[in-house]
Amino acid sequence: MVQNLKNSIILISGGMDSTTLLYEYKEHIAIGVSFNYGSKHNYREIPFARLHCQKLGIEHRIINLDFTFLKSHLLKNQPNIPDGHYNDDVMKQTIVPFRNAIMLSYCVALAESDNYQKVYIANHNGDHVIYPDCREDFINAFKLASAYGTNNKIQIVAPYVKLTKRDIFVRGYGIVNYDETYSCYKGEEKQCGTCGTCVERLEAMG
Amino acid sequence: MVQNLKNSIILISGGMDSTTLLYEYKEHIAIGVSFNYGSKHNYREIPFARLHCQKLGIEHRIINLDFTFLKSHLLKNQPNIPDGHYNDDVMKQTIVPFRNAIMLSYCVALAESDNYQKVYIANHNGDHVIYPDCREDFINAFKLASAYGTNNKIQIVAPYVKLTKRDIFVRGYGIVNYDETYSCYKGEEKQCGTCGTCVERLEAMG
Repeated sequence: MVQNLKNSIILISGGMDSTTLLYEYKEHIAIGVSFNYGSKHNYREIPFARLHCQKLGIEHRIINLDFTFLKSHLLKNQPNIPDGHYNDDVMKQTIVPFRNAIMLSYCVALAESDNYQKVYIANHNGDHVIYPDCREDFINAFKLASAYGTNNKIQIVAPYVKLTKRDIFVRGYGIVNYDETYSCYKGEEKQCGTCGTCVERLEAMG
Repeated sequence: MVQNLKNSIILISGGMDSTTLLYEYKEHIAIGVSFNYGSKHNYREIPFARLHCQKLGIEHRIINLDFTFLKSHLLKNQPNIPDGHYNDDVMKQTIVPFRNAIMLSYCVALAESDNYQKVYIANHNGDHVIYPDCREDFINAFKLASAYGTNNKIQIVAPYVKLTKRDIFVRGYGIVNYDETYSCYKGEEKQCGTCGTCVERLEAMG
């Protein structure tokens, strides 16, 4: 029996990590899902997510989330994005609490509803310092929650969980045009180069 | 040191289970959260959720979720609600996949954002037959995901997980006015008495 390879959904922001993941696992991906949750940079990054899905002939969906009840400098109408390194305490202001759980839950729901088997996410080792919902312990617990909480035992696949952003860049180099990705938290036309995610991105590409 | 007892958020639909939970744990509840996810009956049940929160002096919030991408007869503009018992196969049409994970994730995010410690949910043994995200295995895995995925180790509290709906009714009898709760999936003014949740409700009260 020939297995249906296109059995997966991917969370794709339009940044370098999830775009690399998309290209690496494109044969398995049926749908790319981007979340518009009211961040300062969603409107810059999501068009890149859509662009890459279109290039690969993969369906792209945007799901709107109302996060106005949460406190985070990442969100519109909340204080400005701090400059600094991911490791700096000030970068905690950019946390959107439990965001990965919310986005994964939607994708698992979509997979269960439309008969897909897996959900791919590009969380990686570099995220772990300040984002608890990027760490391996969280992902492993969520894998169980997804398996127990769905009739089709939807699987979470996080191939980058032990990798650094540098590792991801090396994997994607030559197959992803990183000029067609956007990371900056500030959401301006030119990526600032000084916020946490810009610093991390530049270090990875250095 | 006097502990702040009001350290919890509750998922409250306005049905009999979560309303009973609200009254049982009212000393601990700071915020009641209802989700408007486009079901046929949200607009009937949420006003009761709000009413009970107001009676108890508890803040009530409504969060809108866009579930239009999911297939479920429970949602507006999708096929009619079937009649029958929860155990009947036809009732699977009313599943909104992984709904509890999505709603719990939002409440955990809110707790982390606003410095609350616990999230209460009224899932119970009678839900388990067809709703995998009401079962104890799911809740236990999600407890871990919440503890690992937040800096404040937000706790999930599900005191009814081993109880039947009858048990819940017995606990709430005399403290909850069940005429001021709404369960029917069809969302008409008079609860139908023949859909799965109505049948279950009537059995519990019988």
